[in-house]
Amino acid sequence: MSRFGFNVAVVGATGAVGEQIVSILEERSFPVKSLKLLASGRSEGKKMMFRNKEITIEKTVPDSFEGIDLAFFTAGSAVSKEFVPEAVKRNAIVIDNTSAFRMYPNVPLVVPEVNEADLKNHSGIIANPNCSTIQMVVALEPIRHHFGLSRVIVSTYQSTSGAGKRFIEEMYSQSLTVIKNKTLGKDTVYQDPDTYPIAFNVIPQIDRFVENDYTFEEMKMCQETKKIMHLPELKISATCVRIPVERGHSEAVYFEVEDTDVDAQEIKNVLSVTPGIQLIDNPEERKYPMPYFAKGKKEVFVGRIRKDLDIDRGFHMWVVADNLLKGAAWNSVQIAESLLKMRLLPKKSSK
Amino acid sequence: MSRFGFNVAVVGATGAVGEQIVSILEERSFPVKSLKLLASGRSEGKKMMFRNKEITIEKTVPDSFEGIDLAFFTAGSAVSKEFVPEAVKRNAIVIDNTSAFRMYPNVPLVVPEVNEADLKNHSGIIANPNCSTIQMVVALEPIRHHFGLSRVIVSTYQSTSGAGKRFIEEMYSQSLTVIKNKTLGKDTVYQDPDTYPIAFNVIPQIDRFVENDYTFEEMKMCQETKKIMHLPELKISATCVRIPVERGHSEAVYFEVEDTDVDAQEIKNVLSVTPGIQLIDNPEERKYPMPYFAKGKKEVFVGRIRKDLDIDRGFHMWVVADNLLKGAAWNSVQIAESLLKMRLLPKKSSK
Repeated sequence: MSRFGFNVAVVGATGAVGEQIVSILEERSFPVKSLKLLASGRSEGKKMMFRNKEITIEKTVPDSFEGIDLAFFTAGSAVSKEFVPEAVKRNAIVIDNTSAFRMYPNVPLVVPEVNEADLKNHSGIIANPNCSTIQMVVALEPIRHHFGLSRVIVSTYQSTSGAGKRFIEEMYSQSLTVIKNKTLGKDTVYQDPDTYPIAFNVIPQIDRFVENDYTFEEMKMCQETKKIMHLPELKISATCVRIPVERGHSEAVYFEVEDTDVDAQEIKNVLSVTPGIQLIDNPEERKYPMPYFAKGKKEVFVGRIRKDLDIDRGFHMWVVADNLLKGAAWNSVQIAESLLKMRLLPKKSSK
Repeated sequence: MSRFGFNVAVVGATGAVGEQIVSILEERSFPVKSLKLLASGRSEGKKMMFRNKEITIEKTVPDSFEGIDLAFFTAGSAVSKEFVPEAVKRNAIVIDNTSAFRMYPNVPLVVPEVNEADLKNHSGIIANPNCSTIQMVVALEPIRHHFGLSRVIVSTYQSTSGAGKRFIEEMYSQSLTVIKNKTLGKDTVYQDPDTYPIAFNVIPQIDRFVENDYTFEEMKMCQETKKIMHLPELKISATCVRIPVERGHSEAVYFEVEDTDVDAQEIKNVLSVTPGIQLIDNPEERKYPMPYFAKGKKEVFVGRIRKDLDIDRGFHMWVVADNLLKGAAWNSVQIAESLLKMRLLPKKSSK
């Protein structure tokens, strides 16, 4: 561990996102003085590697956060609701990857490429947005900046890793069953009675339904986008869909700019010079973003940019990113790096 | 074979759609006096069953259509362009499942639930629309009829069977490779150098690109919808996407009606009584259409109907159908049944 640095905790360290946070902290040489890996009792005693040292997973309890400077939470909303206040009470700064506090007025909801400045107003908790929101706002922000933005309609193609490790395994085991038997027997379909088969299927529901017949995932995309982009009046609706892909969310995004006479090439020009975005848009050579090639990468990939066939201010684009990285772990570590750069972390660990 | 009936030919009989046409002709007891199964030279001599009789596949040549009353074409545009004129010249009525003649002014483009009456104006060729178009217009037509329709934005989730039998096999064999090796090696990826892997991936391109950076599939959806629905002024744009599903296309459809103050329940009421549509829309019980449950069924399944969050005339819905059946074979046989019902086929075989 570094001599200069912070006492860091990762809650949900054994999960799909938690693993990635640990690995990115190492890859980015984040100044970690000590690393505490926390999980539920089920994972207690397991080991994970960090900078060639074995760290034993501990069960999360309130006192886990004694002496912690910076805590990443990625173990689901219920865990965050229970333990984030305990961490804050003990003076840790929390970067929370769940939906628990995202819409709280005093909690900045941050994608560093979009609204890094909002970090200044934090009071202990910074929320990491929903995976499908992050990649979309990274692509929309430079467009808003140059041409204005009045409307968004998005249809998502979300991977199973967004639902956790168990669902990746379930997808692969169901797929094997389908390939062998050409069908899923009744007994093999539902590990969870509430879960439809995902192998070679499409499920137009992510998260629970809310009162207006949208899903909570769809409402998160709309509400979070308005908050992150500081566009409370933005017109935005979403359809969120789970498909059989392991990693990488794709999005068909329709948007309307405020300026008139913008052409698709101007939008491509702006996106191609935006940090954090890789433009892949060459129809002639069949080049466009796909999850297969986005896996393991930190960028947001944008392509298929074209004008709507009827609406002068309307455009379509295709946005892909690794939901575990830019959609979760990488954005969280980026927030930590921004806090450091902006001197919003304590100068050194005071403990 | 029936004593009363028609001399029928199926061109492309061994393909994914051709097989289904033969099987539906049998299932529906269509009055077939004789059935000629045609394909490329590659399939010549193979056998297929129809009404417990073995029929030998013949190679398609101009004279294949001598004495034929009704010919189904489903072997690709190039084959249709070559042989449809030969069939018409020999007085066969052609139902063409390719894009070859769809936009010809004198060729009716027909989805019986929507524009059956257009059959009256045929001059030998009736075109069967693109699979992704058919299911969408079946869902949109009753909405147009009751509330008017001014705008459509659609994102598709299209299955591999839409690209032919070979791609289904490729999807399954790639999937096995991924599950075993956790990756697709370079050598296993491309059977066709132009084809990206589809296993656990998403490809935002179907058919070739045209000049405006839309794909031909996307333009087909827009142009065909306008023609079928007799709405030349309809505002419509599409994003067409291939996903790893064997059978069943899904579509996230945004649409704007002309009437004001329509609510989602009124739209559900209209769809629930429309022949050819099965409404599956009960969020509380997690009921909505999915390809896994649409496979092998003839209906168009519609659900997730909800008002746009901002636009009073805007709505979203989710439309699923078996692309080989309602999207192709069943719609073609339905056209034949409509021709029969409307007395647009010769009273009996004159040969």
